[in-house]
Amino acid sequence: MAIITLTTDFGYKDHFVAAVKGSILRELPESTIVDVSHQIAPFDITQCAYLLSNAYPYFPKGSIHVIGVDSEYSLENRHIIVFADGHYFIGANNGIITLITKSLQIDAVAEITIPNCDQNTFAVQEVFVKAACHLARGGQLAVISKPFDNLKEVKRLVPRVSNEGNSIIGNVVHIDGYGNAVTNITKVLFDAYRNNRPFEIVARRQKISSIHDTYNGIINYELPAGQRNGAGDLLAIFNTAGYIELAIYRSNVNTVGGASTLLGLKTDDIITINFL
Amino acid sequence: MAIITLTTDFGYKDHFVAAVKGSILRELPESTIVDVSHQIAPFDITQCAYLLSNAYPYFPKGSIHVIGVDSEYSLENRHIIVFADGHYFIGANNGIITLITKSLQIDAVAEITIPNCDQNTFAVQEVFVKAACHLARGGQLAVISKPFDNLKEVKRLVPRVSNEGNSIIGNVVHIDGYGNAVTNITKVLFDAYRNNRPFEIVARRQKISSIHDTYNGIINYELPAGQRNGAGDLLAIFNTAGYIELAIYRSNVNTVGGASTLLGLKTDDIITINFL
Amino acid sequence: MAIITLTTDFGYKDHFVAAVKGSILRELPESTIVDVSHQIAPFDITQCAYLLSNAYPYFPKGSIHVIGVDSEYSLENRHIIVFADGHYFIGANNGIITLITKSLQIDAVAEITIPNCDQNTFAVQEVFVKAACHLARGGQLAVISKPFDNLKEVKRLVPRVSNEGNSIIGNVVHIDGYGNAVTNITKVLFDAYRNNRPFEIVARRQKISSIHDTYNGIINYELPAGQRNGAGDLLAIFNTAGYIELAIYRSNVNTVGGASTLLGLKTDDIITINFL
Repeated sequence: MAIITLTTDFGYKDHFVAAVKGSILRELPESTIVDVSHQIAPFDITQCAYLLSNAYPYFPKGSIHVIGVDSEYSLENRHIIVFADGHYFIGANNGIITLITKSLQIDAVAEITIPNCDQNTFAVQEVFVKAACHLARGGQLAVISKPFDNLKEVKRLVPRVSNEGNSIIGNVVHIDGYGNAVTNITKVLFDAYRNNRPFEIVARRQKISSIHDTYNGIINYELPAGQRNGAGDLLAIFNTAGYIELAIYRSNVNTVGGASTLLGLKTDDIITINFL
Repeated sequence: MAIITLTTDFGYKDHFVAAVKGSILRELPESTIVDVSHQIAPFDITQCAYLLSNAYPYFPKGSIHVIGVDSEYSLENRHIIVFADGHYFIGANNGIITLITKSLQIDAVAEITIPNCDQNTFAVQEVFVKAACHLARGGQLAVISKPFDNLKEVKRLVPRVSNEGNSIIGNVVHIDGYGNAVTNITKVLFDAYRNNRPFEIVARRQKISSIHDTYNGIINYELPAGQRNGAGDLLAIFNTAGYIELAIYRSNVNTVGGASTLLGLKTDDIITINFL
Repeated sequence: MAIITLTTDFGYKDHFVAAVKGSILRELPESTIVDVSHQIAPFDITQCAYLLSNAYPYFPKGSIHVIGVDSEYSLENRHIIVFADGHYFIGANNGIITLITKSLQIDAVAEITIPNCDQNTFAVQEVFVKAACHLARGGQLAVISKPFDNLKEVKRLVPRVSNEGNSIIGNVVHIDGYGNAVTNITKVLFDAYRNNRPFEIVARRQKISSIHDTYNGIINYELPAGQRNGAGDLLAIFNTAGYIELAIYRSNVNTVGGASTLLGLKTDDIITINFL
C-alpha cells in the first residue's frame, strides 16, 4: 500500500497531528504514515515547499504527500491534488505545490470533490485524509476530483547572471537546523559560468574563495590536528541537494553559532559570486 | 491489533520515549504505535487532558491510550485503566483521565495489578506498556487489574451564565501552537442563550462582535485584495472542536504574534460574552 | 524483520529525517523504523551516547541502531558497524559507539565497504541506510564491511573514590528534559563505599543527606497535604538507569525551574559525596 507522508505547521502542542493519524488509521489500519515535519513555521509556504521538494524524491513512486500548511478552504484557496514525478501532492492551492513541481512535468492537476465531505472544517483531517486514503487504496484520481487548471503561481527568488557573465546574484533560501545558509545557486549554474576562473563569494562583509564538496573539505588532514582549520571556521560547500551553502564547520546555533548567526544572514539575503 | 497511542511530557532529550517504544515492540513486534505528543508541559495534567480528549475520538474504537504525565506511583497516585467511549485510557489516577472522560459514560475503572511488575520504577515503560500490550492482544481487563472506585476529581473551569442570561463568563483553557486562545465556551452554550441578539466578546481590553465558522470568515472575497482584512487581524471563530476561539488571522507567535501575545491572554484568563 | 532505530542531530527543520525514512522504506517497505531522537545537540557525541546507551537495551536483540551525529566521512572518521550485546550500531568512528559499548563485550567491529556507494555524500541516507537495510534483511555483516580495529577512544568522566574511601567525586553527565541533573555515580559504587554511614551530597552550595528510590520518596504521605514536602523541593534519587540524580520535585524548567537552573548545575560539574 502506498506511503502517506505528512508535512504541516501543526506542531505538537495540539491534537491536530494525532487527529490526522487517527483518521488515516481508522480508514487504513495497515497504512504506513511518515512525518516529514510538523514544525514548519506557521503559514510559511516557502519553507514548506523547500523541505518537501527536497524530501519527496527519497520516497517510493506512488507515495502520497499530504500538506497541512495554510490549508483552510476558500474560493481562492481550493483543495487540489497534483500528480508529478510519480508522486501525489495533496494540499491547498496556495503555491506550495507549484513551488515543489515547478521544474517537473505535471501529469495531473485536480480539484478535490469528495461527496458529503465538508470543506469548511479541519481540512487536513477531513478532506485530505479521505483523498489520501482513496489514493493509497489504489483508487482513481478522477473519482474524488475534477480537472483544475488554475494553479497559483508564487514568485520565487531565482539567481540571475549579470555583469556579462562575470557575476551570479542569488539569495539565501533556507537556514537549516545547524544554522547553515542554503542559497538558490546550483552547482550546475556555477559551473556553467565559472570557466576555470578564480572567484569570490560575497555574503555581507565576508568573502569566500573556494567551495568544497563536503564540510570536511576545509580540513587538511596532512597537518597536525592543532594546525588545521576546525570548528567555527566559515566555508562554502555544494550541498547534497546540489546548491551552494554557506556553513560554519561544526556549527551549533545554540552555542558557537552558525553561518546565519555569525554572518547575520537570513532568508532572502543576497549572495553574490564574482568570477575574477 | 489495537493501536497504542502515547501522550507524555518526556520530550526528546532523553531515552524515555524510545524506551517505551522499544518495550512495546519487544512484546508486540507488529503493533501500531502513534505519538499523540511528547511535548506536554511537565506535569501539566490540564494540557494533557485537553490534547488527548480532542485527539482520541479520531482513533478507532478499541484503541489504547497510554498517558505518561505525572505517572509515578504512590498510594495517592495509583495506576489505573478507564474504559469509556470504546477506548482504553491507561495512566495514573492524577485527574487526567477524569478530565478526559468527564462527560462520557464510563464502562470500567480498574487499578492495575500485574504480577511481578514493580510499580516503583519507570512506570510507563514497565507497568503501562505491559498493560497496553495485554489489552492490544485482546486480553481481558480483569486479568491485569482489580476494580477501583476512587477516581480523582479535578476542578475544571466551567463557563457560567450570569446577569439573568445576558452574559456568559468563560475562560481561556488552551493556547494553541499558533498562539490562538481557545475558550471553554461551546457553540452549543452560546447558541442556547443568544436568541438572535447582537453580542460582544470581551477579552481584556478588546471587544469582538462577530464569530466566524472559519478563519477565512473575516475575509470579504468580493473586495479587492488590498482592501480586505488580513494577516494580523483579530477574530473569533467556532473551532472544529466546537469551542469559541480568539485568533489572529495567519498568526505566528515567533513573528507577527498570536492572540495570546497580542492580547496578553494566557490560560485561565476570563473571557466574557455580553448579549446586547 | 529487524527494527531500525534512528538517533540524529538533524532536527525537523530540514528534509534529512524524512530523506532517511523514505530511503529505508524504498528498500524495505515493511520495515519498522523508530525515532530515538532527532534533537541531539549538533555534534554532541556525549549526549548522543548517553541517550542511545540508555535506550537501546529496551529494544529486541537484533535491532539496528543508526547514528546520524557527526557522520561525515573522512579518513579519521570512517563509517563503522559494531555488534555488541546483540545489537548493531551503525555510525561514524567518532567515539559515540565506543562510549555506548565501553562496558560491553564487543563481538564485531567492521568498516563499511559497500560497492558503488559514495561515502562523500549524505552518509546517513546513502551509506548507513544501505547497511541497515542489508542487516535488517538478515544479510551477513561481512558482505558489506571489512574488519576494523581502530575504534576511536573518547575520554569520559568517571567518578573517582578519594579521601581513603570517604569521598566519591563524580560529575553531572546529563541534564534531562525536566532539568534534573544526572551524575555518573552509580548506586552500585555508592553502596560499595557507604558502609551504612550517613553522608552528604555536595552540589555547588547545596547539601543533600538522603537518596530516595523514587521522586515521591520525599513525600511523607502520613502528613496532611499542607505539611508535606512538594513541588520545588530538592532531592536526590537513584534513577531507573541506576545513577544518582539531583532533581527538583515536579520541576519544569520553563516555569518553576529544575535542578539545573535552580542550582546552576551544568554538564561536567563536580558532585561530591562525603561519607561522615
